[in-house]
Amino acid sequence: MEVNQQCEALMARAIELARRGIGTTHPNPRVGAVVVNHGEIVGEGWHEIPGGPHAEVMALQQAGEKAKGGTIYVTLEPCAAYGRTPPCTAAIKNAGIKHLVYASSDPNPDMAGGSKVLQAMHVEVTAGVLRAEADELNRPFFHYIKTGRPYVIGKAAISLDGKLATRSHHSQWITGPESRAHAHAIRAVSDAIIVGAGTLKDDNPSLTVRDAEQVGDVPLRVALCFDTPVFNPDCKLLSDEAPSRLYVRNLNEYAQQWRDGGVEVLRADSLLSILQQLGDDGRLQLMLEGGGALHTSFLDGRITDEMVLYQAPMIIGGRDAVSLWGGHGIETISQAIRLDQVERVQLGNDQMIRGRVVYPE
Amino acid sequence: MEVNQQCEALMARAIELARRGIGTTHPNPRVGAVVVNHGEIVGEGWHEIPGGPHAEVMALQQAGEKAKGGTIYVTLEPCAAYGRTPPCTAAIKNAGIKHLVYASSDPNPDMAGGSKVLQAMHVEVTAGVLRAEADELNRPFFHYIKTGRPYVIGKAAISLDGKLATRSHHSQWITGPESRAHAHAIRAVSDAIIVGAGTLKDDNPSLTVRDAEQVGDVPLRVALCFDTPVFNPDCKLLSDEAPSRLYVRNLNEYAQQWRDGGVEVLRADSLLSILQQLGDDGRLQLMLEGGGALHTSFLDGRITDEMVLYQAPMIIGGRDAVSLWGGHGIETISQAIRLDQVERVQLGNDQMIRGRVVYPE
Repeated sequence: MEVNQQCEALMARAIELARRGIGTTHPNPRVGAVVVNHGEIVGEGWHEIPGGPHAEVMALQQAGEKAKGGTIYVTLEPCAAYGRTPPCTAAIKNAGIKHLVYASSDPNPDMAGGSKVLQAMHVEVTAGVLRAEADELNRPFFHYIKTGRPYVIGKAAISLDGKLATRSHHSQWITGPESRAHAHAIRAVSDAIIVGAGTLKDDNPSLTVRDAEQVGDVPLRVALCFDTPVFNPDCKLLSDEAPSRLYVRNLNEYAQQWRDGGVEVLRADSLLSILQQLGDDGRLQLMLEGGGALHTSFLDGRITDEMVLYQAPMIIGGRDAVSLWGGHGIETISQAIRLDQVERVQLGNDQMIRGRVVYPE
Repeated sequence: MEVNQQCEALMARAIELARRGIGTTHPNPRVGAVVVNHGEIVGEGWHEIPGGPHAEVMALQQAGEKAKGGTIYVTLEPCAAYGRTPPCTAAIKNAGIKHLVYASSDPNPDMAGGSKVLQAMHVEVTAGVLRAEADELNRPFFHYIKTGRPYVIGKAAISLDGKLATRSHHSQWITGPESRAHAHAIRAVSDAIIVGAGTLKDDNPSLTVRDAEQVGDVPLRVALCFDTPVFNPDCKLLSDEAPSRLYVRNLNEYAQQWRDGGVEVLRADSLLSILQQLGDDGRLQLMLEGGGALHTSFLDGRITDEMVLYQAPMIIGGRDAVSLWGGHGIETISQAIRLDQVERVQLGNDQMIRGRVVYPE
């Protein structure tokens, strides 16, 4: 095997270990590490829970004396600062590691610089191996560090003509079971699922993970409303399968009923303040599940970072049917919102179209 | 090679020959024939022009004496009736053919029954070999025989949210050059290209085949309007690259100016009467190129038989942007128009989505 291939294979193993932390490490990043000596894996580790040992430390502990003179593969540049645990740079140096290979650079300015510290200590450093894959693993975390906002995924089941529902707000079902299962798998790794007042009222959704395996904590169910909605004892958000929260701009007499039913009711005066609050709680990946008014608000506010569309081979039509992006609309095609890095997957009769949202200049 | 495989390979050759007639045989079907004796191809033929020899006769003539005791592969069941030429069944029998293999059954009741006639004459008959491929080759013809109407392909360049243009009717360019070239290839095998009054005015389209090779006659350029539009000396339909026709419900003072410019102006009182007229002219494949009002009329009238959508990874949005199927809209998802036999092809950044239109019960 080529040196490069071997190097990538070991980093791929570190990424595999990092995945074990999905759903438990947050708000910390997912990190995996492998210690290798004389071509043999002598230690493996991953970051499991906030406050627990970092991946590097776990791998080095397992390697013990065998780490001496070896190489450590880490999915994220090791930290050089005291956080809840001592810096990993010290642990790496103390274990006698001669070579550090890492994938993603740490975007957190308080944590970065570990590779420079180690270079200064005469540890050889190789950066960027399988960087794209490792970055993907921590997209919400990196996004939050860079922007101060949670990563927002807009999800919608639509027709070929981009309708979310008929003019009578009927939408069950546009897409098939394969699409729904795929969406549930995204729910399972999200920290909150958000719907608007219309969806809450029209669809009374459960917003629980049913067609996929839950990973870590169940996501918070959030409904964004203007006024606190009329209390509905049949509302599925009242179930105790997952925590629920109503964000309202105006409190009215129904608030106490919702609270008595176990739903948290909070006031917020803007989408950004809601995002801020969810981010402060360590909820770094948010999934918007409609309807049209909610998607429109988030797109108008340039807040949605990624779109996941499940498109069924049907035409719903109708001037007044519910659209993905309503509102006033644009004048010229250059003002359109574009999707970048588009991924397409056939799911039964539907097609999943996923991409990063690029807003016009 | 297996007998079946050999049989399919020879029919595939016959289909290849039939394709040579695309653009020249219409309104007759495209037909190819191969005569085989002792495992060797001894004659090939195709139907080239109406009134000219049928494919079987051409292949048998080429084979001459070598046809005796052989097998003939034909893409369409041979005719048993006197049309402009004598029946092919007689030619096949007279040439001493022992075995007929054909793909499509002839849907034309005046022509069908050739296989029964030959069986009665003790010629062995095998039907349906590569039938789907052969049927596809003559889709417009078969459709016309069955329904009395030309085959209508609705083509549109749309965004992920199904918009054909912004609210200011700006649409250049939603899709990329690969999509446009693909659409031009469909133009090249269509008999007429149809636009509505809005597209004529907003886009002033050429409606000529530029990014693909023209096959046979250039398609007629047709604009459907209510009143005869104001004469526009810069209208690209005035060019002599292809014939042009305006269908209007009401003639006004501009009609003569258009006629003087070389555009045929005809009155018609319904979409169906226009289709009837185009069908009577032997124009069996029509391509609708928008805009929203035209697509809406054809979908409302359940006239569009196939949709070819070029979908770009962008969101145009806007309550008043031009949609594929506008109008009043449906109540429940079960009333949606569906696409069947969906084919998807990635074309640059866009995706071509093509399927048969299935109207709700």
